[in-house]
Amino acid sequence: MPGEPLHFQVTPIAYVHSCFTGQFAIPRQAGLAPNATATIHFVPPFGDPAAFTGLHHCSHLWLQFVFHLNKHANWQPRVRPPRLGGNRTLGVFATRSPYRPNALGLSCVRLEAITEVAGQVVLEVSGVDLVDGTPVVDIKPYLPYADAIAAENHFAPAPPAACTVVLTEAAVHACNTYLAQTGRDLERLIVEVLQQDPRPAYHQAAREYGFTLWDRDVRWRAHPDGNEPWLEVLAVLPLGCDR
Amino acid sequence: MPGEPLHFQVTPIAYVHSCFTGQFAIPRQAGLAPNATATIHFVPPFGDPAAFTGLHHCSHLWLQFVFHLNKHANWQPRVRPPRLGGNRTLGVFATRSPYRPNALGLSCVRLEAITEVAGQVVLEVSGVDLVDGTPVVDIKPYLPYADAIAAENHFAPAPPAACTVVLTEAAVHACNTYLAQTGRDLERLIVEVLQQDPRPAYHQAAREYGFTLWDRDVRWRAHPDGNEPWLEVLAVLPLGCDR
Repeated sequence: MPGEPLHFQVTPIAYVHSCFTGQFAIPRQAGLAPNATATIHFVPPFGDPAAFTGLHHCSHLWLQFVFHLNKHANWQPRVRPPRLGGNRTLGVFATRSPYRPNALGLSCVRLEAITEVAGQVVLEVSGVDLVDGTPVVDIKPYLPYADAIAAENHFAPAPPAACTVVLTEAAVHACNTYLAQTGRDLERLIVEVLQQDPRPAYHQAAREYGFTLWDRDVRWRAHPDGNEPWLEVLAVLPLGCDR
Repeated sequence: MPGEPLHFQVTPIAYVHSCFTGQFAIPRQAGLAPNATATIHFVPPFGDPAAFTGLHHCSHLWLQFVFHLNKHANWQPRVRPPRLGGNRTLGVFATRSPYRPNALGLSCVRLEAITEVAGQVVLEVSGVDLVDGTPVVDIKPYLPYADAIAAENHFAPAPPAACTVVLTEAAVHACNTYLAQTGRDLERLIVEVLQQDPRPAYHQAAREYGFTLWDRDVRWRAHPDGNEPWLEVLAVLPLGCDR
């Protein structure tokens, strides 16, 4: 419209410290991995505890954030959603693809706790689909009466079917040790993440894959079993270690 | 975090042409007035029809938009939500107040139709809570399995109770004439908007109020009736006319 500005500025109010320390295998929507946790660290003046008064009465939050690892300019009108097997295209506005004209994301997460560090609020949340370091530009309470809608979406009517995930004895042992050391239930998180089958659409059957959670490297591979592959976790190692 | 940019730029991809041609009496959430309609006009290159392929399979959309009539700088940590009667404060992040550190809004609207004007897509939507001229920065499909959550919100567990709305004979006649001329069902829209009782928290009992819908001025007042006021629509006039 005539006279409108061509751009608006948004300022990060907080940064996410997430279990997803690498980009690969992050769930494609929030809520798919309930054990995926993060802390949201607000920067002054946005972390003023007064700005969070009453928030503990909300079970869930909307996070509006920036897909900061994407280049802003590289959006295309058509994308290939992994959900459709990578060989069908949809319009970018019919998908939640991170490659969008404005690299803005939207995730609904569960609010677990509200704490403070050095006078600035820190939110503990779960069910995240956000890479470590994500800049947050707004937090809004979830309003069930306005936001929970019996909508239809032909292409994604339900969560993706869950794959079977099996851990080797060595992997289970490594997870138990990590739980004892850190309090983080890595085994449940690994299962929730791999149930989504994060392989790219064009995958090589026998390849070994890896992804990182916190400071751990998770090595795994897929066993095709008819139409229902099962995924095997081979090892859980400190980052940078060779087996 | 060190090395992070202090700002990101967002570019309006579209502008809203809405029934709400004034700021007063706009519903406080999307979906509260199902007959509140708008068209969303995309600007090149964002209105490329290819970018909307498959969108007709989605019944509802998220609009991420800019509260462009607000000053960016005037956020306060505490706000007085009208829902709480205007005499209690909440932290801004516990509310959907438009006065936020980043003036970004979020509304879920129903997708009614996808059309084109001069090669650029126009979306027809309903259930809007957006003022005419609102800049849109992203459109995302509503994903029921990720977005429809049985969340709790202590302060707004349900839609506000609906007031009784009565129209004078003259107002009904003006609405019927407008419907015949434009196809717009102004009467149903007026009732849906006034059922929300849009009076400011500190109101004067006997005052006459006005708000605009499309190119019409709606004049009304409240009749206190114990704890349950009823609202009377006195007249529906072309903008700029005196009775």
